[in-house]
Amino acid sequence: MTPLSGHLEAMRTAAPLVQNVSNFVAMNVMANVMLAIGASPAMVHARDEVEEFAGLASAVTINIGTLDAEWSECMMLAAGAAARRGVPWVLDPVAIGATTLRRQLGARLLELSPTIVRGNASEILALSGIAARGRGADAVNAVAEAEDSAHNLAHKSGAIVAVTGAVDFVTDGTRAMRVSNGDPIMPRVTALGCALTGVVGAFAAVASAFEGTVAALAYYGAAGEVAARSANGPGSFQVAFLDALYTMQGPDLDAIARVRAI
Amino acid sequence: MTPLSGHLEAMRTAAPLVQNVSNFVAMNVMANVMLAIGASPAMVHARDEVEEFAGLASAVTINIGTLDAEWSECMMLAAGAAARRGVPWVLDPVAIGATTLRRQLGARLLELSPTIVRGNASEILALSGIAARGRGADAVNAVAEAEDSAHNLAHKSGAIVAVTGAVDFVTDGTRAMRVSNGDPIMPRVTALGCALTGVVGAFAAVASAFEGTVAALAYYGAAGEVAARSANGPGSFQVAFLDALYTMQGPDLDAIARVRAI
Amino acid sequence: MTPLSGHLEAMRTAAPLVQNVSNFVAMNVMANVMLAIGASPAMVHARDEVEEFAGLASAVTINIGTLDAEWSECMMLAAGAAARRGVPWVLDPVAIGATTLRRQLGARLLELSPTIVRGNASEILALSGIAARGRGADAVNAVAEAEDSAHNLAHKSGAIVAVTGAVDFVTDGTRAMRVSNGDPIMPRVTALGCALTGVVGAFAAVASAFEGTVAALAYYGAAGEVAARSANGPGSFQVAFLDALYTMQGPDLDAIARVRAI
Repeated sequence: MTPLSGHLEAMRTAAPLVQNVSNFVAMNVMANVMLAIGASPAMVHARDEVEEFAGLASAVTINIGTLDAEWSECMMLAAGAAARRGVPWVLDPVAIGATTLRRQLGARLLELSPTIVRGNASEILALSGIAARGRGADAVNAVAEAEDSAHNLAHKSGAIVAVTGAVDFVTDGTRAMRVSNGDPIMPRVTALGCALTGVVGAFAAVASAFEGTVAALAYYGAAGEVAARSANGPGSFQVAFLDALYTMQGPDLDAIARVRAI
Repeated sequence: MTPLSGHLEAMRTAAPLVQNVSNFVAMNVMANVMLAIGASPAMVHARDEVEEFAGLASAVTINIGTLDAEWSECMMLAAGAAARRGVPWVLDPVAIGATTLRRQLGARLLELSPTIVRGNASEILALSGIAARGRGADAVNAVAEAEDSAHNLAHKSGAIVAVTGAVDFVTDGTRAMRVSNGDPIMPRVTALGCALTGVVGAFAAVASAFEGTVAALAYYGAAGEVAARSANGPGSFQVAFLDALYTMQGPDLDAIARVRAI
Repeated sequence: MTPLSGHLEAMRTAAPLVQNVSNFVAMNVMANVMLAIGASPAMVHARDEVEEFAGLASAVTINIGTLDAEWSECMMLAAGAAARRGVPWVLDPVAIGATTLRRQLGARLLELSPTIVRGNASEILALSGIAARGRGADAVNAVAEAEDSAHNLAHKSGAIVAVTGAVDFVTDGTRAMRVSNGDPIMPRVTALGCALTGVVGAFAAVASAFEGTVAALAYYGAAGEVAARSANGPGSFQVAFLDALYTMQGPDLDAIARVRAI
């Protein structure tokens, strides 16, 4: 298995163009996070160009945070184009359990074979068909509650499934790993989960989906730990977090990461 | 009357889910402000889910900052669902005097009986039918110029009306209070008024509309004062402000607040 | 020629209302940048009000970053209204070479005689009809490669053309100037190019298009240099940059600026 730092360095060298159909809350943070890690983000969603653009991208991410009927169709087009061209694509099923519109779109997107699904525990439970307690974008369930569902979802869909939270869980339906980096203040900054989906996409452009996802999660959590050392609250955390993503070197990542197979 | 700190603590304990139909400039800031105070924001606006979601929320806020025809209808649906279910809802009539589209939508939303209206002086003047000098989202009129209009608007609509500015004015049409916390740099950070509307919504979920609004305004202004002590400009102010909202404790709020009945 | 500081002071005194039809990634940053410099930004794009609002504005900017079919029409309406009323308008052709939708819209907008076109080298090359290597919003070409195209584009369209990058190039088709302020971290913060377009609009509201553009670019780059002194990465840079735009005084600008005619 390649060391985590190897994936980070490969991603920075490639500076992959990642197309994101994301949401209005997250777009700016996501773009800043992706620029800070060394990737090249593009927020492109229009019906008239979303498929054409997918032909230029090294990875595509789809986030259903602030969808409507038109955006839903654009998400289907982007995901479909990625699937047809063999471009890795990542599904972020934000608040999928909250409304009928979300549940239906989630089911349709799953049929387009996402390479990776990344969500919080409530979202992964809901996407697996299990009633979860999540209300909005915030998780109410713990990661451990969603591990069986993640296994089943990975098995059924063929996707790598990542449940993120205090301790992240990543599985391909057979093997699984836990990543226990991060800081408790991270859910108090909006869209850090959405932005992480972009980081996962950038790593998936240069590594196998399983290893790339694990590396992305460890790097993200490690930068969170570095940022928390100097933060006084969610405002200063967000600033320090972008700096930490930007300045973190491979050896630091390998030293801070807490990843183990289970 | 409950001390301000009592409302703050009740809000943090409840962590109310607040649904916001907001604007593209404000969504990220609003979500970060609401997470910093301990609420759970959800940005949901699609025609196909906006009413269903209002059934989950403890408060709803409607902000007309970057509207168009489709969003206008979604705002009407969300406000209507809140009104029917007895969920408190807050109207933020951004730049309402600027165009015909805004004036017409404002009148239609007022008919749905907002629990609270929060705007700057130019907006409250315009919403009361008086020609104001506001051009865009920035106030040109002083709060004092809008106090009579606020009284009339509260009386006619049944809403609590809050005019925010250097000294905020809150009235239910009979009694009124002034809140004189805050810092002059606050209008130099975009969307802090919009984000305040979300804070008002979160307090209205746990307190009476009048007391909750006053507590929200005092808390917001007090955090602004704390942030200003360490800020060198609007960039560092915004960071320190999120930190101050997050770290402020009840006794600090009671000590810093300058609220008086008139 | 007016000193740069003269244009800065005139802009701050006028606090021009600038209407921006911008993109979802940039709107918040752009509004914060424009408030920090002392202008009054308004993000207004709806079909039903975009022309009416253009009658209130002292400048209009059009940015095609996250367009779709509906937004494209709104951009045409806003640009058309500005052109008819003689209000200066600035075109920011984000990622124009990437897709057919963008190339076609760019050509239509050019017919409405923008006062100023501001883009990176890849965008100016593509807008001039030359195949460029740009993929998303990031420039791949160097400014020097686009100088001839900028000359031709200015000559053909009548617009001032500004190619921004490590050393900016501004031309009216006859004379030209270079501005070599700025810091290499700036492309690692999203939407700083988009926000610059708003700054150019604010200066164009109070100065001739050529001199105003040069002053805006020098001021922006100078603030970037000040910010870079205290930044540890793109997160802290963005904070310090807003502070530097806000605090910079005219004499500092004249001292830091590196502008020369060529």
